[in-house]
Amino acid sequence: MTEGFHSNIHLALVHFPVYNKSGEVVVSSVTTLDVHDSSRICRTYGIGALYVVTPLKTQQELVDRMISHWKTGYGAAYNPTRKEALLKTQVINSLQDVVQDIAERSGKKPRIIVTHAKKLPQNIGYGEMRKEIQKEEQYLLVFGTGWGLEGNIIRNADFALSPVEGPEAYNHLPVRAAIAIILDRLLGIRDRRVVPQSQT
Amino acid sequence: MTEGFHSNIHLALVHFPVYNKSGEVVVSSVTTLDVHDSSRICRTYGIGALYVVTPLKTQQELVDRMISHWKTGYGAAYNPTRKEALLKTQVINSLQDVVQDIAERSGKKPRIIVTHAKKLPQNIGYGEMRKEIQKEEQYLLVFGTGWGLEGNIIRNADFALSPVEGPEAYNHLPVRAAIAIILDRLLGIRDRRVVPQSQT
Repeated sequence: MTEGFHSNIHLALVHFPVYNKSGEVVVSSVTTLDVHDSSRICRTYGIGALYVVTPLKTQQELVDRMISHWKTGYGAAYNPTRKEALLKTQVINSLQDVVQDIAERSGKKPRIIVTHAKKLPQNIGYGEMRKEIQKEEQYLLVFGTGWGLEGNIIRNADFALSPVEGPEAYNHLPVRAAIAIILDRLLGIRDRRVVPQSQT
Repeated sequence: MTEGFHSNIHLALVHFPVYNKSGEVVVSSVTTLDVHDSSRICRTYGIGALYVVTPLKTQQELVDRMISHWKTGYGAAYNPTRKEALLKTQVINSLQDVVQDIAERSGKKPRIIVTHAKKLPQNIGYGEMRKEIQKEEQYLLVFGTGWGLEGNIIRNADFALSPVEGPEAYNHLPVRAAIAIILDRLLGIRDRRVVPQSQT
């Protein structure tokens, strides 16, 4: 595994424990498209590792098969950029296992940053978080599928990022879009060349 | 159609003319998921209208059927937020028809802003474009599917946005992710509350 620019920052796409539409805690289904999109987005921003979290063996096998297809199968020859995107993607049992895997690889337990569609009293803004992740620590950004991460994961996190808000009250972004926007806000190269006309 | 915060800014998701993997000009297939994701993202940022551009009648019918399902069919009751997202989405023949539709509705021809994965000499940055779109003009953001927008569309545009770049050279974002990131950069509410400790 080559070292990326942000190889101390990892991402977990969580399918359990999450809420369903009725507010029950469930295992949501893995969507292979989410895995592809998240991998391509993580690769763009140089994320250390992408963990697809599900306790279901059949779903784990599905993701493994998909990753193998693109990494070593016909897909690797057909679309090498997809292979490149999936090199740091893996499927894993639980969030606890993710924390352990990062700790074993890096020697440090990651600090947990949760994302959520609703405002929370403990929310931290993007500017502040951009500074935080400059530290020589390991970080794990956690995204929930379905109707969002189960409450204890939110409560036990080290940080809870402010929700992504547009100018309107509608907040039903696909998790794929939230990952793209949040990684860009935290890790995107900022456009600093623009200065007001009067200063040129 | 209610007026949104950015109802003078519109988006076109173009399936013709675009390039395929071999650099030929083709009609790409409409992906219903792209339509869903783009609609939800546009709704979040208060975009005026989302145009799905394809000259193929069968594909137009597919999109129309999908929109009807969520707007008036079973889907409208099952998931009202999806209905809300799709209210400003429509399928249309060509980019020329998009320009005409906006001109007829608003009385002004839109200024065309193209997006592209590669750097171009005429690129404009996000800070500058944020300022530009404050003007009382109509704007059309154009995104290509497949391997990107055909060259003449790029050359004839009023503006060409800088590509979305992460810290690494990999630039193979899904169009869904590019739309999310670019709308957030142009229209997202900036995190202005964070000030350095020394200034508090």
